[in-house]
Amino acid sequence: MTPRGDIPSPTLERLAEYLRCLTETDVDVEEFISSDQLGKRTRWPAELVRRDLSYFGEFGRRGVGYNVTLLRHALARILELNRPQPVVLVGLGNLGRALLTYPGWDRFNLFIAAVFDTDPRLVGKRVLGHDVLNADAIPEVVPTTKARMAMLSVPGSAAQEVADQLVACGIRGLLNFAPLALEVPKTVLVRNVSFITELAVLSHYTAQEQ
Amino acid sequence: MTPRGDIPSPTLERLAEYLRCLTETDVDVEEFISSDQLGKRTRWPAELVRRDLSYFGEFGRRGVGYNVTLLRHALARILELNRPQPVVLVGLGNLGRALLTYPGWDRFNLFIAAVFDTDPRLVGKRVLGHDVLNADAIPEVVPTTKARMAMLSVPGSAAQEVADQLVACGIRGLLNFAPLALEVPKTVLVRNVSFITELAVLSHYTAQEQ
Repeated sequence: MTPRGDIPSPTLERLAEYLRCLTETDVDVEEFISSDQLGKRTRWPAELVRRDLSYFGEFGRRGVGYNVTLLRHALARILELNRPQPVVLVGLGNLGRALLTYPGWDRFNLFIAAVFDTDPRLVGKRVLGHDVLNADAIPEVVPTTKARMAMLSVPGSAAQEVADQLVACGIRGLLNFAPLALEVPKTVLVRNVSFITELAVLSHYTAQEQ
Repeated sequence: MTPRGDIPSPTLERLAEYLRCLTETDVDVEEFISSDQLGKRTRWPAELVRRDLSYFGEFGRRGVGYNVTLLRHALARILELNRPQPVVLVGLGNLGRALLTYPGWDRFNLFIAAVFDTDPRLVGKRVLGHDVLNADAIPEVVPTTKARMAMLSVPGSAAQEVADQLVACGIRGLLNFAPLALEVPKTVLVRNVSFITELAVLSHYTAQEQ
């Protein structure tokens, strides 16, 4: 049994990084990988890698390391990426396009199930391999995709309304890029990505005493 | 004295959110703000807001709340955003454009000091108000900007080389979007933003027991 919901998100983020690293590993060349190697490639201390992985079962063998294929499957299962996971995208500006073309969709078993925008120049067109649907169709289309996750790359002024619509369609995880704190029911998880917040953190840490 | 370096990054992220919220507050209308209000707008518990803010000094007055202007200045000082902070951008694809047009640059006192790309169709052009410089010019131009921070929105295959160049130019904080763990000296801080990692975390949490 996976201790679902009990795994802290920093650990999950590391597990996702290990998985990415393993999907880049050619098992014909490298059948086993040590925690040292995995740590080196992901820049996490080998001790932390060992602790993260031992927590979820016994993947490793002393002196040999982890079987790459088995570990990959185990990580994918923990992250619920062992079967294809549909994701909905709302907002096809520069950021939306960057999301569509971000590397790793296939290897993480994630796929874009529907793309929405309000711009009449985009709606009905095919962009980067996806049909752009009118955002008005969200209530009708999203439930048919069975998606649990959505990415919100819309302007801040539209984000709450779109989030409400998505939640009403059964979306339970939102990746929000608008610089605004969404109001959602307790059963819905929001992960916020704010570039400016990231820079503010860097600004503090990189400041020199002058 | 700011306990620089001692503030954990989740706290700094919240401080940046409070700051964003306060920059959206019209001090002519609202001179004071309570921790309840600040918590409501940022979706953090009022108790946590109080704790975060009390840690850095006495901004609040019982029954009145925080003076918006003073708190704004104090937060900006902690985040080293009380004076303009130059940021360098390398990579002007969809993501780079999204970063340039992301809202909040001015109000956080951050500005783009230089934009680099390798695409001959972009180099020498003016894009979104910025002259696009050839990435070959990084060693020459970046030191003149006095930037401590850079955003890396280049393909994974180029990220490490560009990071090395930027670090050699004095960059001490990197916001990296490539799905890859950069190798940098201990004095350099990397913040990684991986959209796929974010989705992997959401995938775990939104999974239904079936």
